Amino acid sequence: MEAVKALAEDPVDVTVVDRRNHHLFQPLLYQVATASLNPSEIAAPIRRILRRQHNAEVILGNVVGVDRRARKVVLVDGEVDYDHLILATGVTHSYFGHEEWAPHAPGLKTISDALEMRRKIFLAFEAAEREAHEEHRNAWMTFVIVGAGPTGVELAGALAEITRHTLRSDFRHIDPRAARVILVEGAPRVLPAMKPRLSAKAKAQLQRLGVQVRVDAQVTCIDETGVSIGDEHIFTHNVLWAAGVAASPLAKSLDVPLDKAGRVLVNPDLTIPGDDRVYVIGDLASLQQNGKPVPGVAPAAMQQGRHAAENIELALSGKEREPFHYLDKGTLATIGRASGVADIRGLQLSGAVAWLCWLGVHIWFLIGFRNRFVVMLEWARSYLTYEKQARLIIEEVNDLMGEPVGDEQAERPESAA
Amino acid sequence: MEAVKALAEDPVDVTVVDRRNHHLFQPLLYQVATASLNPSEIAAPIRRILRRQHNAEVILGNVVGVDRRARKVVLVDGEVDYDHLILATGVTHSYFGHEEWAPHAPGLKTISDALEMRRKIFLAFEAAEREAHEEHRNAWMTFVIVGAGPTGVELAGALAEITRHTLRSDFRHIDPRAARVILVEGAPRVLPAMKPRLSAKAKAQLQRLGVQVRVDAQVTCIDETGVSIGDEHIFTHNVLWAAGVAASPLAKSLDVPLDKAGRVLVNPDLTIPGDDRVYVIGDLASLQQNGKPVPGVAPAAMQQGRHAAENIELALSGKEREPFHYLDKGTLATIGRASGVADIRGLQLSGAVAWLCWLGVHIWFLIGFRNRFVVMLEWARSYLTYEKQARLIIEEVNDLMGEPVGDEQAERPESAA
Repeated sequence: MEAVKALAEDPVDVTVVDRRNHHLFQPLLYQVATASLNPSEIAAPIRRILRRQHNAEVILGNVVGVDRRARKVVLVDGEVDYDHLILATGVTHSYFGHEEWAPHAPGLKTISDALEMRRKIFLAFEAAEREAHEEHRNAWMTFVIVGAGPTGVELAGALAEITRHTLRSDFRHIDPRAARVILVEGAPRVLPAMKPRLSAKAKAQLQRLGVQVRVDAQVTCIDETGVSIGDEHIFTHNVLWAAGVAASPLAKSLDVPLDKAGRVLVNPDLTIPGDDRVYVIGDLASLQQNGKPVPGVAPAAMQQGRHAAENIELALSGKEREPFHYLDKGTLATIGRASGVADIRGLQLSGAVAWLCWLGVHIWFLIGFRNRFVVMLEWARSYLTYEKQARLIIEEVNDLMGEPVGDEQAERPESAA
Repeated sequence: MEAVKALAEDPVDVTVVDRRNHHLFQPLLYQVATASLNPSEIAAPIRRILRRQHNAEVILGNVVGVDRRARKVVLVDGEVDYDHLILATGVTHSYFGHEEWAPHAPGLKTISDALEMRRKIFLAFEAAEREAHEEHRNAWMTFVIVGAGPTGVELAGALAEITRHTLRSDFRHIDPRAARVILVEGAPRVLPAMKPRLSAKAKAQLQRLGVQVRVDAQVTCIDETGVSIGDEHIFTHNVLWAAGVAASPLAKSLDVPLDKAGRVLVNPDLTIPGDDRVYVIGDLASLQQNGKPVPGVAPAAMQQGRHAAENIELALSGKEREPFHYLDKGTLATIGRASGVADIRGLQLSGAVAWLCWLGVHIWFLIGFRNRFVVMLEWARSYLTYEKQARLIIEEVNDLMGEPVGDEQAERPESAA
């Protein structure tokens, strides 16, 4: 989107191809998963964003490959010619080669993912309420989040708040406050990309919310009964995946060298080796800078988008393309209400101050997403009341307990209607 | 919900069983389908509504029958005993015995239905934008709504506005204003339950919005190519169903006489013949009053809910149950912005006045749905800007044109990326 907008005044025709009709503000996806926000509050139709950019058109279509020789993008049901191509198809979640874990541990990359995660979370409490057998009930009331990057930490914090506050008075047979929220991380500390001091702060804040933090913990198995960490098995029906990522398979069709995670090793000017008409940006690009990889975060992707557009402009006017330089403006994570950690150009903050930074930055970047005001309203209300607006399970249920437990017939205390 | 709340102060245990976790304000469902509102703005978790009513508990479960002899409600995965039962499982859409029409003409009874209808509406424009063949493009840009009751009329009005205003500048190859919206009704006039004068007013207002109104029109076939009315075939991929209803199949398990539509013929006190412990209310109940049927509308259902609760109270204190009397407070329908028709105890209104009545009544009844303020905000914004907040198609697309057209390969104008 940044690249498209940067080309608005140029004498070029821009075609945006996406298999979804909306542009998503991914950093707030966990708030859709935990029922704080509605999908439309963090996503906007691409068509609407670009309605006034008359040199741009939008195609809803599924790209299956790039034919560099013919300079065509190949869709399931058509193709689009290009003179210059910017590929920004990002990453999806990966289960470290254990694809069999996927059905038991949903990840969080799209709105569908978020709604599925929401369904799973709130159905778990419904199942627990109806489950008479203590061991089974505990399995419903145990939540394991794999991966303690920003997404994992934010999910764990939001889940702890839901169990401690939001659902507090809603059930008659269970006490949601008894739910366990366990955050599992393979590295020696949470938020491993941040400074150790902030990791320690984040851990303390999570523990204060009641989250059990398990670092240096390797997941060895995930199935319908739970998750294994080394030799220990945690019985749970609620495993949420916030760990590995894998590059979009479109990278392969470029036929250039990829890194271990399948990302494209781009030139410093963001083109690919041997083809200066193709740019790869965002999470799909692998680029070293000052001996460190450019991180797969939204600000880096946005900067790259603008840079790729500038390089196309330079190339069109016969000038030399310029190398990309990432400007790290800081890292932020929120941990429940009024707490969080922030590293802003070396300035390390935690607690309420970090949370306020997070709030400001995220409201600022929702500019363009027209729901900034509604989101602020929802956050204010949610802060004051602990209420979550979007606790809907859209589908009807059939056999609630049957789904993952399988063999147990539901028993429940007698009651009169 | 009205019955449950009316029993709040009584020495009884109330169990609410529902296969969805939310209570839905159905009159605004068409606004979810046409992307004006988010699901959570017209639905609230049943559990949250009843969190402070300590004599009530909520079970998320799918009821498959009633065993009156054993006084049990039978669930897919369990059962619930009762002393008194209130059955209010309503109606679903019916295709007049043509179940083969269902996949081509989605109806509008649940949030899932509304999201599916929304997806269908907005994908149609995406497909039209990519379709080079004029005849096929026209089929994507023709919308046929079957049934001109309040839902059909409101859907047609909202759709006309979307095509004329909301999407106006969003496309490059099609002009959404060229879309046809056709409202088909078997009876001789739209809104057949209202007075003829108001039907005429409603028709004129629809036509002013650009809706083609076809009355006395019998649908004889619906398939993937379109809809047949008598001998005429309208080519369209967008048929929306707002016509017949059929009673919930649970009525059958009561083993009492049903009417033609499968609804339970209840006693004047809302109990069923031969069993004074079972009440049937809402759309599922069939009851004559002063020679006219009590209509299947929300106010009648709410009045019956309160009445059934009162009759249970009377029965518990050994008194005689009382017959139900429906108080008709009026009928309203809105037709796009600032127009509509209303019949309030004989007072017939149309145009902006009727629309303001509609607005007031609907905002009033969203009390209890905590999003009244957000809804007002959205309506105000939408009124001023013609914008629709919730134009998201959540799923990614694969083969856009392939879905209903099937055999056509997508062709589109060339463009440069």
